[in-house]
Amino acid sequence: MKRPTIADVARRAGVSKGAVSYALNGQPGVSEATRQRILAIAAEIGFSPSSAARALSGATAEAVGLALCRPARILGIEPFFMELISGVEAELSARSYALTLQVVADQDAEIAVYRRWWGERRVDGVLVCDLRTDDRRIPALEQLQLPAVVIGGPGGTGDLASVWSDDAAALTEAVEYLVALGHRRIARVGGLPDLRHTEIRTEAFAAVCQRLGLVDAVTVWSDYTGEEGGRATRRLLSSAHRPTAVIYDNDVMAIAGLSVAQEMGLTVPGDLSIVAWDDSPLCRLVHPSLTALGRDIPAYGAHAARQLLAVIAGDPATRVQDETPHLTPRGSTAPPRDR
Amino acid sequence: MKRPTIADVARRAGVSKGAVSYALNGQPGVSEATRQRILAIAAEIGFSPSSAARALSGATAEAVGLALCRPARILGIEPFFMELISGVEAELSARSYALTLQVVADQDAEIAVYRRWWGERRVDGVLVCDLRTDDRRIPALEQLQLPAVVIGGPGGTGDLASVWSDDAAALTEAVEYLVALGHRRIARVGGLPDLRHTEIRTEAFAAVCQRLGLVDAVTVWSDYTGEEGGRATRRLLSSAHRPTAVIYDNDVMAIAGLSVAQEMGLTVPGDLSIVAWDDSPLCRLVHPSLTALGRDIPAYGAHAARQLLAVIAGDPATRVQDETPHLTPRGSTAPPRDR
Repeated sequence: MKRPTIADVARRAGVSKGAVSYALNGQPGVSEATRQRILAIAAEIGFSPSSAARALSGATAEAVGLALCRPARILGIEPFFMELISGVEAELSARSYALTLQVVADQDAEIAVYRRWWGERRVDGVLVCDLRTDDRRIPALEQLQLPAVVIGGPGGTGDLASVWSDDAAALTEAVEYLVALGHRRIARVGGLPDLRHTEIRTEAFAAVCQRLGLVDAVTVWSDYTGEEGGRATRRLLSSAHRPTAVIYDNDVMAIAGLSVAQEMGLTVPGDLSIVAWDDSPLCRLVHPSLTALGRDIPAYGAHAARQLLAVIAGDPATRVQDETPHLTPRGSTAPPRDR
Repeated sequence: MKRPTIADVARRAGVSKGAVSYALNGQPGVSEATRQRILAIAAEIGFSPSSAARALSGATAEAVGLALCRPARILGIEPFFMELISGVEAELSARSYALTLQVVADQDAEIAVYRRWWGERRVDGVLVCDLRTDDRRIPALEQLQLPAVVIGGPGGTGDLASVWSDDAAALTEAVEYLVALGHRRIARVGGLPDLRHTEIRTEAFAAVCQRLGLVDAVTVWSDYTGEEGGRATRRLLSSAHRPTAVIYDNDVMAIAGLSVAQEMGLTVPGDLSIVAWDDSPLCRLVHPSLTALGRDIPAYGAHAARQLLAVIAGDPATRVQDETPHLTPRGSTAPPRDR
């Protein structure tokens, strides 16, 4: 894949290479309007002046980028990302690739990071997490022609390679299990609603509840933090027809839900059954240990990394379905006491 | 700082550049003894064959390296590292520095990563975590002259810059508080015993217990995992003179300890008081919430990153004392019931 050069910027802007250099270095010699136009073109095609030396060398970066768009307090507590990173790392290390990590505030910042990384040849490709509905990063990455693998889907990944798991099937399995235990009032505490996998789970939850005739089924949204997960649980358990089972979109909110049940004098699983998503060591730390939907997250990260290295090597972009999360019943689920 | 070249290696080894090339590429043409000598010299002066292109460019990497030597399962669950990383990141991003992350299996692998990073000019400096007693990384980094800041100490950091916090004072405060509540049988579940800060805490625990006449004080070692922390707690609570209070070296083990107490029919804090180290959102997730020794870990990471950028810029290496962890009492500590 050809690197953008100063000549490309000059040609597109219809100016000399010298004018581009003046504009990029903030020197006089071009009008402000022209300078702005040149900067916009440079940004658009991913050219950066400091990429010159690296581009001249023709060397690959032998590094893969991962930008994480989550508040620091969530990154710290949710095991998912570190487990994913450890899997990515294992695959990259074996190939002497480095992992470049950046925490970003929002999608605009993330797209800017991709432009800079690619322009400066800091990375050879990127892994994209937390796919959103109508995700602006997808067309931006397509335009940059930066090799990328989206960890998420299915759907919404454009022409990019992706690795995804069937969250809809997993959620359906969990609801069917709870119904088999005798539960009829099942609630779900969802993650951030604009994430693609939240949407997929929400649709699957509505579909299976309708099919099984669970008229009281409700999804409330949260933000993956324990604080919000606890608040959502408190509201659910304070309602007139409180649920006898709750499914949580992550482990941290499920543990907060368990604490709220204990705080309100409800026993788990007697009064309330709890199912956590993304089984992690956290689920086995608490008492009772949590029934959870789990999969091998380090392996998921390793598969994504392997796919990215293939895309970097020139292989066509494919959509790979990974292992479907499976249910591990533990101490937090049982038939409801008031069945 | 001049980059080492293949000629430098050849000159030092007293061989031809071709011989160096054979040795580095594992090709025949040099004896095994010569190959080992050449590899040692190349490693010593930080030469790496693929560094050539980057070295030609003379560019700085504008990246900082962080090698993490912990099993993936611990990295995933312990909030400390992600909180530290988010603080490091915040400081680096503001200066357009990238963070290069690598998970390594042991100290030898970590030293090899430092050599490669520096030889290939992949990073301009490194942050060093998990300082050990007689840490072999310290002389290796001194020899490489790779800018570095050790997150740990005091002591054992050689001539390198460091940022540290007074764990001894914090642990003493926690023990004094428990004694003020009326506890006399206090145990501690420590982290990995060969870590420098474990050693510092162990010495401080022994000293304060002796000073206050706590003859039953005991430290048992664990590995920061919930499994081992739970097992250690089960042993402590099964002993004839079971402790009325336990201090844990991390949050994950403290939560496992709380679960074991519940499993054994003991109430917290009535039968057992629990103090966690490194206060995190996990400590507030459980019921009762955990009394904890805490500090601002993202700020700790930010300070270390700022110091590293100063060292990279040529400032002298200093040893900076950061905030001392402070005790936040919550629901898991109270006077012992059988006082």
